[in-house]
Amino acid sequence: MRMRTCVSSMAAGGNMEWLKSVKGVILDMCGVLYDSGEGGGQAIHGSIEAVKRLMDSGLIVRFCTNETQNTREKFVQKLRAMGFDISVSHVFSPAPALVRILRERRLRPHLLVHDDLMPEFDDVDTSSPNCVVIGDAADKFSYQNLNEAFRVLIGLEKPLLFSLGQGRYYKETDGLKLDVGVFMKALEVNTVNEYACDVQAEVVGKPSADFFQTVLNDMSLQPHEAVMIGDDLLNDVGGAQRCGMKGIQVRTGKYRPSDEKHPSVRADGYVDDLAAATDAILTNP
Amino acid sequence: MRMRTCVSSMAAGGNMEWLKSVKGVILDMCGVLYDSGEGGGQAIHGSIEAVKRLMDSGLIVRFCTNETQNTREKFVQKLRAMGFDISVSHVFSPAPALVRILRERRLRPHLLVHDDLMPEFDDVDTSSPNCVVIGDAADKFSYQNLNEAFRVLIGLEKPLLFSLGQGRYYKETDGLKLDVGVFMKALEVNTVNEYACDVQAEVVGKPSADFFQTVLNDMSLQPHEAVMIGDDLLNDVGGAQRCGMKGIQVRTGKYRPSDEKHPSVRADGYVDDLAAATDAILTNP
Repeated sequence: MRMRTCVSSMAAGGNMEWLKSVKGVILDMCGVLYDSGEGGGQAIHGSIEAVKRLMDSGLIVRFCTNETQNTREKFVQKLRAMGFDISVSHVFSPAPALVRILRERRLRPHLLVHDDLMPEFDDVDTSSPNCVVIGDAADKFSYQNLNEAFRVLIGLEKPLLFSLGQGRYYKETDGLKLDVGVFMKALEVNTVNEYACDVQAEVVGKPSADFFQTVLNDMSLQPHEAVMIGDDLLNDVGGAQRCGMKGIQVRTGKYRPSDEKHPSVRADGYVDDLAAATDAILTNP
Repeated sequence: MRMRTCVSSMAAGGNMEWLKSVKGVILDMCGVLYDSGEGGGQAIHGSIEAVKRLMDSGLIVRFCTNETQNTREKFVQKLRAMGFDISVSHVFSPAPALVRILRERRLRPHLLVHDDLMPEFDDVDTSSPNCVVIGDAADKFSYQNLNEAFRVLIGLEKPLLFSLGQGRYYKETDGLKLDVGVFMKALEVNTVNEYACDVQAEVVGKPSADFFQTVLNDMSLQPHEAVMIGDDLLNDVGGAQRCGMKGIQVRTGKYRPSDEKHPSVRADGYVDDLAAATDAILTNP
């Protein structure tokens, strides 16, 4: 099997040598496995087979998403309906990671999250909140709800804000939508300004190192033994690289040509899509 | 007439000398003249008389507000109903200043402002927008409206964002409310992030130097001949000082004791209220 497309850093003589030490693959989901859109979206050409080939090869495969508009169970159901053979226990998403943190630190959140994500917090005590959690709440990002979250936050002796991811915006069929990171910023506000609450959000999900480490622990791998494949240069590739993993960017999803000239983050490889990444990995055993 | 209360920098021997060169006074409105609240708010004790005394003294008096939830006319009506003898032509607010800028630069705005402010833009062409304007839109800061403003902004070849003021939050009878500056930040987003539109808003209103200069021009005064009196250390006092004016902070409205220990902005005087400021000015002719 040949690599269908491979450019610059991956193509340039011998740069794929590092693939030989790869024992595990972490896959971003939206923009790598499927494109979101009407009716939940559709699989990206060749990705269903690519996932199967990676799994059949003996590599350890895990999935890592910042999806917070659905419970992990519902989300995996959607992917299975598209044809992906994925089990819930192999999917890592911010909400379950946050629920663990809340439990460990005995925190009671005020939740500003999507209605469909709420079941993840069924067992969480939300009385007398001592922290604020925001996810991609979409239409629930109303002036009233933002004010309410802000009042809880500024009313705390030690304001504590968790953000499920920190994306800026994403594209849906009816246009660009502001993502959680924008509202995280709005709640963090400016520490220079006296009217500000001096808060820096704790981001749960990519690109948090803790989040990637949880996935590596589950794989029983060292960072240098794993590669992250994503369409998001900063949150997927950059985040993984900061943990000591390799990162490949696919030219699907939110990829933009300018990513390949980014001033501070450079992927270890750029490929057209997950099928091409899989070819590269499996031809360098 | 004695100064009723005067502290630290104003009280300390001879520090009020600069008041001798003052020929004009610029007054902030909300938090200095009145407190907002139920039914439009109420006058702060002694402020109606203080305004009258300043005007009767022969000093040139102007009013400078970042109010954007009402047209200037409606706003002045409200103040007159409270008992203040104020004429519209002496009141400077962001919307009329912005309308002048839009006309001069031939800009067509997409408006995300309060419904009650809309009449200020009656004569403004809003077809095929080539800039975005945000004010304190309050309940109109919905996810849908923010997305729409964002799409217009990011769709422009040269994204241009105007913000009517840059306040972070304010207090109303039913609690703290997020102000325009927070949503300005949300639209500006982070220039480091690749998913960002690299925009810095042009702030119209306090603390913009252009805005203060317009008021000074109307008064035919040099900056050193004027003093700004406000409850907002950064936007009133700091902004005026950066223009070469003096700035007095009143301990009403949004004043907080920590303001007097601010690391970078120090008022030329701190007084209990507008009546006390007026006493200080009129006893140093």
